[in-house]
Order: sequence, then C-alpha cells, then structure tokens
Amino acid sequence: MSDIVSELDCLFYPKNVAIFGASNKIKIGTMGLLTLIAGGFKGEIYPIHPREDNIMGLTAYHKLSETPKGVDLAIISVPAKNVPEVMEDCVDAGVGACVIFSSNFSEVGEEGKRLEEEVLRVARRGKIRFVGPNCMGITNMDVNLCALMNVSIPKRGNVSVVSQSGTLGTISMLNASAKGVGFNKFVSSGNEADLRMEDFIEYFSQDEGTDVMFAFIEGVRGGRKFLDVSKEATRNKPFIVLKGGSTSSGSRAARSHTGSMAGSDGIYDAIFRQSGIARASDESDMIDLIKGFSKSPLPKGRRVAIYTVGGGFGILAADECEKNGLDVIKLPEDIIEELNQFLPPFWSHGNPIDVTASGAAALGGDESIDERSLKILLESPAIDGIIFMAPTNITSRINRAMSRISVGDIKEMLSTILKTGMLGGALKDQVKKIVELKERYEKPMVGVNLYGESEIEEYKILEEGGIPLYGSTTQAAHVLSKLIEYKEYLDKQKFLSDANI
Amino acid sequence: MSDIVSELDCLFYPKNVAIFGASNKIKIGTMGLLTLIAGGFKGEIYPIHPREDNIMGLTAYHKLSETPKGVDLAIISVPAKNVPEVMEDCVDAGVGACVIFSSNFSEVGEEGKRLEEEVLRVARRGKIRFVGPNCMGITNMDVNLCALMNVSIPKRGNVSVVSQSGTLGTISMLNASAKGVGFNKFVSSGNEADLRMEDFIEYFSQDEGTDVMFAFIEGVRGGRKFLDVSKEATRNKPFIVLKGGSTSSGSRAARSHTGSMAGSDGIYDAIFRQSGIARASDESDMIDLIKGFSKSPLPKGRRVAIYTVGGGFGILAADECEKNGLDVIKLPEDIIEELNQFLPPFWSHGNPIDVTASGAAALGGDESIDERSLKILLESPAIDGIIFMAPTNITSRINRAMSRISVGDIKEMLSTILKTGMLGGALKDQVKKIVELKERYEKPMVGVNLYGESEIEEYKILEEGGIPLYGSTTQAAHVLSKLIEYKEYLDKQKFLSDANI
Repeated sequence: MSDIVSELDCLFYPKNVAIFGASNKIKIGTMGLLTLIAGGFKGEIYPIHPREDNIMGLTAYHKLSETPKGVDLAIISVPAKNVPEVMEDCVDAGVGACVIFSSNFSEVGEEGKRLEEEVLRVARRGKIRFVGPNCMGITNMDVNLCALMNVSIPKRGNVSVVSQSGTLGTISMLNASAKGVGFNKFVSSGNEADLRMEDFIEYFSQDEGTDVMFAFIEGVRGGRKFLDVSKEATRNKPFIVLKGGSTSSGSRAARSHTGSMAGSDGIYDAIFRQSGIARASDESDMIDLIKGFSKSPLPKGRRVAIYTVGGGFGILAADECEKNGLDVIKLPEDIIEELNQFLPPFWSHGNPIDVTASGAAALGGDESIDERSLKILLESPAIDGIIFMAPTNITSRINRAMSRISVGDIKEMLSTILKTGMLGGALKDQVKKIVELKERYEKPMVGVNLYGESEIEEYKILEEGGIPLYGSTTQAAHVLSKLIEYKEYLDKQKFLSDANI
Repeated sequence: MSDIVSELDCLFYPKNVAIFGASNKIKIGTMGLLTLIAGGFKGEIYPIHPREDNIMGLTAYHKLSETPKGVDLAIISVPAKNVPEVMEDCVDAGVGACVIFSSNFSEVGEEGKRLEEEVLRVARRGKIRFVGPNCMGITNMDVNLCALMNVSIPKRGNVSVVSQSGTLGTISMLNASAKGVGFNKFVSSGNEADLRMEDFIEYFSQDEGTDVMFAFIEGVRGGRKFLDVSKEATRNKPFIVLKGGSTSSGSRAARSHTGSMAGSDGIYDAIFRQSGIARASDESDMIDLIKGFSKSPLPKGRRVAIYTVGGGFGILAADECEKNGLDVIKLPEDIIEELNQFLPPFWSHGNPIDVTASGAAALGGDESIDERSLKILLESPAIDGIIFMAPTNITSRINRAMSRISVGDIKEMLSTILKTGMLGGALKDQVKKIVELKERYEKPMVGVNLYGESEIEEYKILEEGGIPLYGSTTQAAHVLSKLIEYKEYLDKQKFLSDANI
C-alpha cells in the first residue's frame, strides 16, 4: 500500500466527522451538515459550535476537545481568518484529515495566500492532510459519506471524480446520476494548498471501489507527477479528463478563477495521449464518456455494424462512424444469407442493416427480428462493435393518443390490443433479451435514443445491462471510438512490455 | 400567391380526409386513422373499406364514390400493386391531393419503379398532387391534421419540417416537442415521385404559420430549384438543414435507402452557405438549432458576455465561444464599476462574470444579484449576446434530501426555511424577472443547463420566454454563432440589395 492510500484513509473512511461552522441557521456549514445527514453517513457526526448545544437534532460540542472520541475527519466552514485557529484545535485533538470549505484564501490575492500558507504550516506540524480551502467537499459512497456543501447526493457506483471546479463537478455528478451513472468517490480539490489533483488520481488508481476515473482540470500544479500517476492509473482502469482553458479566452478565465496556469493546450493534449487518457470535449461529452467506460466492455477493433429500423438513422450513423475513424464494414455474405432467412425482402442487404419499420416491435411486426438479427451480429467474428437505434416505444405514444380520444369503443379496442402485446407490448421482453445476448458475447453495443425520453423503463434496462444510450449518432460513434482508442493504448503498452522495450 | 401554395391547399388544409387501408385490425392504415382521430382533426374522416361498415367508431364507405361530399385529401395505405387502382378512384372522385404510405415502389427496384411511374401518370391525368409513396405522412397543426402512420402528435408551434427520412423526422419531432419546440407543418416526403422537398421549401417559405424551416436531406433531386427556393426562403425566415450522407459510408447508405444520390458534401456545403442555410451537425444539434432559431432574437454582432456562478463553467464557456468565433469581450470599465456596486468583492472583475456561489439564489444569497447583473449586461451597447449558467434548483435537492432524513425536527426546520423562500424559494420569481428583462432588451440570451433536468418548471419559464437552454457550453456557443451567421447573411444580402449589385 502506497503512502497516499494510508494517508487518505481518514479522509475517505472516517469513523466519525466533526463539522465547524454549522448552526441552526442557513449558511454553508449548515448545508454541509444537512448533506452529511441526508447522505446517511454511517459514523458519528459532531457539530462544533461555541454556543449551541443542539444543531439539527444532533448534540453539539462547544469545543473539539469535548467530543467523546478521537476525530478522524473535520469539516471546516468558518470565516477564513478563523481557519488557522480551528486547524490548531484539530492538531491538538489529533484529527486525521480536514476538508476546508472556507473561501477568501489564495484565490483573492496576497493576503489570502499568506493565510493559506499559515493553515498549511499548522496542518503539516500535526501531520494533517487536507482538501481545499475554497472547495465544495468530498464524497465516499462506500460509507455514505457526503461531505459536500451543496446537498449533492449522487447515485452509488464505480466512478470516482476529482474536480478543480466544485460547482461544475457536483452539478455534473448529479446530472450523470440522473442518467444512470453511479459514483464511488468525489473530490472538489479547491485551491489545493495541500492535497492536489495528482494525489487523488494516485489514490483512485489503487482504490478497489473505483473502476473508472474522471478529472476536471483547470491547471495541473505538478506536471511530472500528473504524467506518472496517470500512466500508472490507465494501466488498471480508464481515466477520462475534461480540461478547461483550451483557448486563450478560457485560460484567461482559468487564471482568474483559481489562479492556476492553464498552460498550452497542445502540451496537455500530448500528455493525455501519452498516458492513455480519454479526453472529453465538453461537459456533456464528459458524462457520455463516463457512461460508456463505466458500462460497456472494450471493443477488440474498429469494425462496426449499424442496426436500424430507419434509413435516415443508418445514414447519419454511417457518417459519424467514418468521421470517428470506425470501419463501417462491408457485410460478409454469410451474414447477409443468415439475415435473408427471416428479414423481409426489402431490408437493406448491407451495412447499415436497415430492417425498416417491419422489424420494429411496433405495428404488429415480428418482435423477434431485432433479437435474431443482433444475435447474428454479436456472434460474428467480423464485427467488433454495434451501433443501433434504440427501439421506440410506440405503446407509450398510443397510450397518450388514447387519452385524447373520447370515442369509447376505439379506446376499448386499442386497450385490448395493447394488453395482448400485439403492438410493441413486448418491448420490455425484447430489451431484456438484447441485454442477455450482449452479456453472453461481451461485445460493445451502443444505442442511440432519438426519442429523447431517457425515462422510458426499457431504456433503463438496456443501460443497466451495459448498453449505454446516447442522444445522437455523433456521440454514439464518438464514445465507441474512445473505447477503442483506450483498448489500442492498452494493447500497445502490453506489446511494449512483452517486447521488453 | 404562387402555384405551389394554391396546389397544396387541399393537402394541408383539407375540409375532409378519406383513408384507404384502415380497418379494425392493427396495420399501418389503422395506425394512420388512429393518429388522425387522436390528433383531433377538425374536418370529416371517411374510412374506405370494401367490406367494413364501421371502423374505429366511424362510418366506413365501401367505395370512395359513396362518400357524402367531394374529398380534399386521400391517405392511401394499401399494397403497392393496388395503389394505381385507388389513384384511379381518386381521379374519378375529383380528390384534391393524396398521401401514399404504401412502400415497395422505386426503393425496391425496377418493377417498383414502373409501378410508381404508373401511379404518377394516373395522378397527373387527374391533376392530383401527392406525397410519397413510401412516406410516413404529413401534419398541419393549424387544422389539427396528423396524417401520420406512427401516432406522432407534436406540440403546436411555428416550425415546419420536410424530411426525407420518415422515422428520423417523426421521432425527432416528438423529441423536440418534449423539449418545448412547437411545430406547424411536417412532411415525410418519401420517394418524392411527385412532390419533392423543394416544393415544400417553397411552400413553407410563403406559409404564414411557418416562422422557422427545417429539412432533413438525404439527396436533393432538383439542385437548381433547391438553391433558388432556399435563397428565397432565407430572405424571410431561418432555414436549418441536416444532411445525411456527408461521408462515403453515409452516402452509400443513402443510396441504398431511398435511391437518392447524396452527391459531394462539399457541393452541398457551398450551396447551404450561399443560400444562408444553417447546417446542423447531427440530429441532436438539429433540435438545438431549431430551438434557438424558433425562440431567440438574432444578435447584432459577435461580442459575448458570459455570466456564471461557477468558475469552471465560465472557463469552458469562454473556450467554446472562442472556438465558435465569438468574441469574449474585455469587460468595459463602466460595467465593472456598476457591478462593483453590489457584487461581493471576490467576483471575477472580468468576463466571464463569475459572481461565485454567493450570487446564486441558493444559500441565502442575495437573489437580486442575477437580475441586477444581467440587466447591466443586457443594457450595455458593448455586448451583443449573453451565455449564462442556468440557475440550479437547490430547493429540489433539499426536498429530496429531506425525504431521506428521519429526524423530525430537522425536517420541520428545513421545511419552514423552504416555505419562507430563504433558500432559493424565490427561483421562479427570479427567472420570471430574467425573462422580462430579456423581452425588454431583445438581446439573445442562451443558457446552459448543467443540471440536466429539463423538467424543472423554472427552465420551462425561461425557454417559453425566449431563452433557450442547452446541455453544454459547446452547444450554447454553437447555436449563438449560428444565429449570428444568419444575421450576417441577412446583413450582407441587404447591403448587396441596397447597393444594387
């Protein structure tokens, strides 16, 4: 176990948490306490307040020294000028680690910088590692620890995040949670007076709860260490990065935000490529990539089949595959012959495999067409990955249509038809079978949800089954190409290592 | 009034509709009838069936000639081989226009092509204009006409669409409807044996109900006419196009889909630019652009201010503005001084205008900060457009958090706080004030919704007030740049026309 893992144990797995700056009035510390309680933290919580005896239903202590046990983690949300004193208390009480929400430090100028250095000096003396100041906090869903200031409680999962922007990080985590991505650990690293992004990358790299890593970067403080820990990390798990400040307007803004030097975008790009990092193009692509890497297996190569019930979709998907360096293969004769056995005569006889609307579950079409077609594509050694149009749920449209119809006997007829499953009623069975197939063959499938209704139950079944869905062919092809790039990086590393170069 | 407008009158504004191929069993014609009924069509509907007397609660006629009045529009959904005969009936009955759902025509080979030509010959004899064959139908929300085969009933509005892909067109229309975009007319043009995309562009260009036009193109059949009608159209209203088949993989797929020649993408791109068309990059961008053009005023120039409560967002937005050719202006001294009057001392003092979390409605911050800041930016003649981070709704997060807390007195305290509006309870008032400001100054504002919850009521208020929201800074900057490009095109046309060149 490396130093960083043992050092951050108190931070991520505290048995108890003290919080300075919470009260019974609404302020940032109180919101932090609320988040801690609502997150369902499994250990003890000690609010510290000079006068209050009870805060939000918990026993409050006037001093840290009055708490019953030794404190693992202290959350500090007091005015900047009082932070050194609180840190002194933490040192005296033998606190393991701190998270400092308080702002007005190095981000506001020289005076704040001096104060920040003082806090660091005190902490070093007591061997306390801390996150911040000027940060929004940390999360570890392994122990239900949500030490965040803005009531962000993510879905639990296998993705860990370090973000140099607290707002962007927390809000995006909630957004991704709503889209089915689960999180393990989260850190808003703030001014990084002590612990830096690189430390968390090193930690996540060795963390068992973390399968996929993500970092939002404004500017790296330790370039060499960043490269080293990133290279080590990507040997074990995918690492996605979104870098702000890639233009001169953006890097000016970054300098003003946390005082970090954004540096040349070309240098960052080279470092990312060199260390096998998947670079996200924006905050929406970031969520798409996280979803892809956390749900899908890696493809073996670039040969793609496109499966669709609509010709327009197939055309767009083919365009985007080519733009993303994927190979829309010429469909082998044996696959065409197999598909000819059951597809209607007017299917496309090529790739994109366009079975037309007759293949859709809707319209009384043969519901097994999707399943049988996809099985052939999944089985074929000539195909490395599949992009498909997510089945549209005509049943829900019909249900909505029925609510607009006043004629009783039409409603009754349609309702009977819906119940008998003649009309796409079997959609749920269909997607379950698709998930089963995908699991059997461990070949990546990415779907495009043109319909935009991510709340459709069938879509959740697909995503939970490891088949991520995206809002456009562009993103589906882009994510698939990033999965392949990472696989190629791993293969190259293996080759170099086997060859002892 | 041009020929096309009078010719298509029967198609879009029929007083009655006959439908061939509907029955009491589920098939495509029946789905068409269901859509027609559920759409709430204001005229008479005559199902035509050789044996049935009543279909879905409506009186059915054994022959077209038995219907009580002259028929304006006939929907044909019978096997391909029977279409010529049905078209003969339509000619004999003096039908005004037809929509042919039936497939198995030119898209499947030579025999189908001959059949299609026969249908065209018959129709020409009776001066019947028709859409299709192999199409999904048409919509005109002005008269609640939803003559579509797949139960697609869009939100009513000012956008009209012609799509060479029926599935992509209808599904995207539903997706956009759910995102608050309203539609007026829709056409799935199918094989375009008679009426072609160009005809609908010409029609929409003169149509009073249409403020924004969109076309999904696989391949244009009449290039010269397309250029002419598009140039004419963009004089009056914005015209957005998504072109499939921009790569060799995509154009191969297009050829196989509707037999259309996709042609060189460079030629299309030049034609689009030459005629002031805004080109969408994919099916998701298409919806973003339609939303932008249908909701936002056009900016006067490229000078942009970025308004944010989070530094990371500001950095990304600045990057994307620069990448999209927008000018993230240096904030004029007078604006900085005005903002200094009420912003906290640690605001960014530059563009992006980062007021930090203290400016958010949340956390007991001063709720008027957004309103006062945005007013200054809207008033300033130095700024042409604003990109801002949509306010996040911490209230809904707190409500969710409360549902996880079992301690009674915390719940009670929080609930009291929420009710008094101390904690972002005033968000709705805030967005209403932002809408009022935007309407007063008629300056484009585009928001970025990092939170991803488009269903938040406050976001609907913004969008209905002409402030479109997007899922990423990339799309916000991209849409704003497309609005500006169109404005610059219009300015250039005006200059050329004034100068009599």
